[in-house]
Amino acid sequence: MKVEVFFTPGELAGQELPERVVVIDVLRATSTMVEALANGARSILPVATVDEAARIAQNIGRDTVLLCGERKALPIDGFDLGNSPAEFTAERVRGKSLVMTTTNGTRAFLAVAERRGGDGERRSKVLASSFLNLGAVVAELATAGAGGANGVTLVCAGREGRFALEDAVCAGAVVRGLEESGPALELNDGAIAARGLARRHMADLHRMLELTTAGRHLGDAGLGDNLSFCAQVGRSDVVPRFRERKLTLE
Amino acid sequence: MKVEVFFTPGELAGQELPERVVVIDVLRATSTMVEALANGARSILPVATVDEAARIAQNIGRDTVLLCGERKALPIDGFDLGNSPAEFTAERVRGKSLVMTTTNGTRAFLAVAERRGGDGERRSKVLASSFLNLGAVVAELATAGAGGANGVTLVCAGREGRFALEDAVCAGAVVRGLEESGPALELNDGAIAARGLARRHMADLHRMLELTTAGRHLGDAGLGDNLSFCAQVGRSDVVPRFRERKLTLE
Repeated sequence: MKVEVFFTPGELAGQELPERVVVIDVLRATSTMVEALANGARSILPVATVDEAARIAQNIGRDTVLLCGERKALPIDGFDLGNSPAEFTAERVRGKSLVMTTTNGTRAFLAVAERRGGDGERRSKVLASSFLNLGAVVAELATAGAGGANGVTLVCAGREGRFALEDAVCAGAVVRGLEESGPALELNDGAIAARGLARRHMADLHRMLELTTAGRHLGDAGLGDNLSFCAQVGRSDVVPRFRERKLTLE
Repeated sequence: MKVEVFFTPGELAGQELPERVVVIDVLRATSTMVEALANGARSILPVATVDEAARIAQNIGRDTVLLCGERKALPIDGFDLGNSPAEFTAERVRGKSLVMTTTNGTRAFLAVAERRGGDGERRSKVLASSFLNLGAVVAELATAGAGGANGVTLVCAGREGRFALEDAVCAGAVVRGLEESGPALELNDGAIAARGLARRHMADLHRMLELTTAGRHLGDAGLGDNLSFCAQVGRSDVVPRFRERKLTLE
């Protein structure tokens, strides 16, 4: 099975995507998505801009919708929730439709969607991964792999178009999980590097997150608690799927 | 000292560059540049297209100019040399001006040049690194660092806009060299990852090169000899400098 890792959405340019794609934004979009859906949110719609989020929420009706997201790591004025996964408790999100706008994660999902036709999207499986649901993602990919699917592409959200260590380590952990669970893999350069980084950093994820640019910015913004939350490997067994512009557990 | 590594020229978008920049394209542009200048070539002008290379060679005069480069790893029809460093012997290149067009390396130098004004370029030091001149590059950066320069940015050429393992390992080896030779460094995510990859792969560079997409393509094209050539750490003590669009040893 062919496994490719790309460290920024920009690396997807000109790239053909296989049926199965995994999007990773550890700090914090995909961690938050996993936590929100695990806690009973109905769906999450990632959108590019704050204005678009507000307009959509107004159209759907403000009583069933929660607006959430961040700009420069901070909550957005007038929104219901920020982008810290710990905010997305069952009490806040159960039964709600979330409209979410974040800097990097949203962009990654939209970049993947853009590279597919309508038909492509219906057939494809685009999943969201973080450390929280690592085992569940590997299990889902490993099972599907046995059916002879044509490989997996892991897309790291990165940070403002650049490499982000935490996403690379998470991608590498998925690669390692797939290696342990099945036949030999054919890896691209990104996957080889990510695997090596996972070997190095999985033993102390919290320390690794503290070293990253994103982690340091969260600490500076008084949001350092996010690091220990997002470092919880296997907290959740849900695998969010992105389809028709929304993430759900269906 | 701040040390940043970017894995593709695309990651430079919106990035401010310090005075000192190092461009890395291990397979094969910067390896070839180092070998050619070490063997007495007067200068190397990297250009984007085959047509531009041919036009410039005609203007300067075909007797002092050598046309060199590759497309899809292979020599270009009507050119004097390809892009295998072993071709650039003293007999072929001494006293010659080289006009070179390659897929990834050229693009990286032009991306760096684009991010500078005329004044910026005159003040700046853009160097070419490969494994061949690794120690010389580290020595040059470490000396200048003592003068209080504002950091170093290492730009990997990558491969068709994507991450290339061999360039990342070389960048990481420079980071390690700087760490060993001076004060504590402030690293971005790319530099942390590159350093880890260098720790992992420097002990067997030839094996690492064989694993890479670029290395496998060279092998498939019958150019596998390039790997052992480009894996020679410290073969050369020259540090090519890119200024006014040309690489020289001045």
